[in-house]
Amino acid sequence: MVGVEWLEGGITAVPGILAAGLHCGIKVSGKKDLALIYSSTPAVATGVFTTNRIVGAPVKVSREHLKGGVAQAIVASSGNANVATGEQGVKDAREMADLVAQSLRIPPTHVLVASTGIIGQPLPIEKIRAGVPKLVKALSPQGGRAAAEAIMTTDTRRKEAALKVEIQGRAVTFGGVAKGAGMIAPQMATMFCFLATDAALTRDALDLVLRRAVERSFNRIIIDGDRSTSDTVFLLANGLAENRPLAKGDRRLQSFQHGLEALTQRLALMIVQDGEGATKLVEVRVSGARSHRDALTAARAIATSLLVKTALAGEDPNWGRIIAALGASGAQMQEDKVAISYGDEPVVEAGRLRQKVRWERVKEALAGKEVLIQVDVGLGLGQAHIWTSDLTEEYIKINARYTS
Amino acid sequence: MVGVEWLEGGITAVPGILAAGLHCGIKVSGKKDLALIYSSTPAVATGVFTTNRIVGAPVKVSREHLKGGVAQAIVASSGNANVATGEQGVKDAREMADLVAQSLRIPPTHVLVASTGIIGQPLPIEKIRAGVPKLVKALSPQGGRAAAEAIMTTDTRRKEAALKVEIQGRAVTFGGVAKGAGMIAPQMATMFCFLATDAALTRDALDLVLRRAVERSFNRIIIDGDRSTSDTVFLLANGLAENRPLAKGDRRLQSFQHGLEALTQRLALMIVQDGEGATKLVEVRVSGARSHRDALTAARAIATSLLVKTALAGEDPNWGRIIAALGASGAQMQEDKVAISYGDEPVVEAGRLRQKVRWERVKEALAGKEVLIQVDVGLGLGQAHIWTSDLTEEYIKINARYTS
Repeated sequence: MVGVEWLEGGITAVPGILAAGLHCGIKVSGKKDLALIYSSTPAVATGVFTTNRIVGAPVKVSREHLKGGVAQAIVASSGNANVATGEQGVKDAREMADLVAQSLRIPPTHVLVASTGIIGQPLPIEKIRAGVPKLVKALSPQGGRAAAEAIMTTDTRRKEAALKVEIQGRAVTFGGVAKGAGMIAPQMATMFCFLATDAALTRDALDLVLRRAVERSFNRIIIDGDRSTSDTVFLLANGLAENRPLAKGDRRLQSFQHGLEALTQRLALMIVQDGEGATKLVEVRVSGARSHRDALTAARAIATSLLVKTALAGEDPNWGRIIAALGASGAQMQEDKVAISYGDEPVVEAGRLRQKVRWERVKEALAGKEVLIQVDVGLGLGQAHIWTSDLTEEYIKINARYTS
Repeated sequence: MVGVEWLEGGITAVPGILAAGLHCGIKVSGKKDLALIYSSTPAVATGVFTTNRIVGAPVKVSREHLKGGVAQAIVASSGNANVATGEQGVKDAREMADLVAQSLRIPPTHVLVASTGIIGQPLPIEKIRAGVPKLVKALSPQGGRAAAEAIMTTDTRRKEAALKVEIQGRAVTFGGVAKGAGMIAPQMATMFCFLATDAALTRDALDLVLRRAVERSFNRIIIDGDRSTSDTVFLLANGLAENRPLAKGDRRLQSFQHGLEALTQRLALMIVQDGEGATKLVEVRVSGARSHRDALTAARAIATSLLVKTALAGEDPNWGRIIAALGASGAQMQEDKVAISYGDEPVVEAGRLRQKVRWERVKEALAGKEVLIQVDVGLGLGQAHIWTSDLTEEYIKINARYTS
């Protein structure tokens, strides 16, 4: 494993990356609602999008623009998702890219677009039109924070991080911003993550490592099980580290993967911790499954169960709910082989409550801000983990009282 | 369609069916916790159980007893689920059946068993041992109500119903009791439904119609998406109506199916209406899907989405959440063909908000105790409906504050 050195700041910690964020008028609150990330040189670029069959107009346009494999800017708005807006929505998303391209004098296809917020309402493109020139002027190496703020919706905290790893004696920097509170927030609010690195990679290699990193970070967190129409992850690699480009099969790619995953996992955990109404970050670790896939199926079922999540809010060691979620998951299992621990304290063995459980330790394990649940299925070598949060009344308040 | 005549009372409305319910000491509250249903003649019997891979000991024993296809009694306890209790649990469930069999002088395999309540704790069999003789003495044609009360856990209301249909000039009676508040309540509380009819049927035919009726009633309701380890439906057909026995392929079976479904649907809706914290009964109706299966997949996804359910609690016409749940469901769809109505008021057409929506009608449709959401996918002839409830803060309170 390569060592990871965490850096101050976020995406603008990466050499050659500038950013900006400002209020252009989409949000009535007056908060920042337009963000721009810019690489001083064209970057190899790739993206991962929601698997929802219905996607926002920005997703459609960005998918198109990514076909070339090169991008130099990401423009993102918050307050309006530009989803379910028909042909006009696609035109508006395209214009958003065009406006930025004109101001920056780069090809429109080198601009990626993302929007989050209200669904089914026309994007107020005239406000974005007026905002883009100011946004371009505001670009700076200190702008990461403003960009992180400008993509927030129900987020209570800005999410950004940066780190450095060494790849064969050469320092490579990664930086990123994210948004999301819940996998999805009121009005489809969505998960965004915009990442940059100064490493040089081929497009194929970049694509591969991003997919893996997303699988092991954003695809391992669960807030409410809903998937948005706009979830978007972008990764730009501008090559300023001047390393020999990393290609598929290159052993150095592992170090790159390691650095990228450290970053995406940290950003993913920030999203869980900022989950709507969440008070705990919970890791559900399943081992002993027939396969890794089975372990993931089981972990996901436990981490999604409302009964498990509400029990966690009540700090209740309700292992019966864990067993029931496990049994319902579809993963292979045998009741008399299941073991469950809260933190490191074993509670269930061979499918039954242990004779002697140190309940004070269980209580302690459940009382913290970070809770670990370990489940061993006792059938094989498959293992997986999922991060989730507890489910509190606050979640319902946030989601029921929002009026569209 | 045959006409259905609703009757007063529940399972004891069926000729030859006696029942009783009393407190034997499992529940500390002093409420009834032991129920017995008895048919004066041996009945053709069948059952449907949870699909959870982990099941309670009573499910194991009842599955065994049902192999013979004949039963004469159902004994059910509440307060302890006898789940995750190992070999001793199976012994205890077997003894529960034996005790009833001895008192009634019938074979133990003619007794079906069910338990609901706390998981992982030994069943207090000595209390049941003391209770059974009194229970048998208390059997009466008016005992349906006591039996319905004795299977309640977090239920706030007793659930029973009875009806009569004519099958080729002969009156056939159906009666039933059910429990469940949420598909599952704190501590795996479970859904039970015990049904009886005086019709004569072959075992094959009985099995077929029960499976269909469950598919169209209990499998069409969603409270929290969790499945319990103890869900159980039993159906006894004692033949006292003296009709020529209904067999597979008999056209009269349709009338029987119709009567049984009317009953199971009514009981299923009672469960949704008594859902933990629920304030509304919501029907999600999906049409225009590529297949019935696709329609069901879509309806289930919408009815399970926390964001849709919390929006319903807030009476918020948040159609964006419906579209997102639809898109994430995996069912075939095309955004620009989707139409959505609240009640009978169309809100979305061709995937977009309609120009003129009578919002006061939408508000009215959402304000009632019963809410209808209609989604047309515009691709085919597949249709399906699912009943669900809204998700309120009360659900979280009930489930987080319960201490095991």
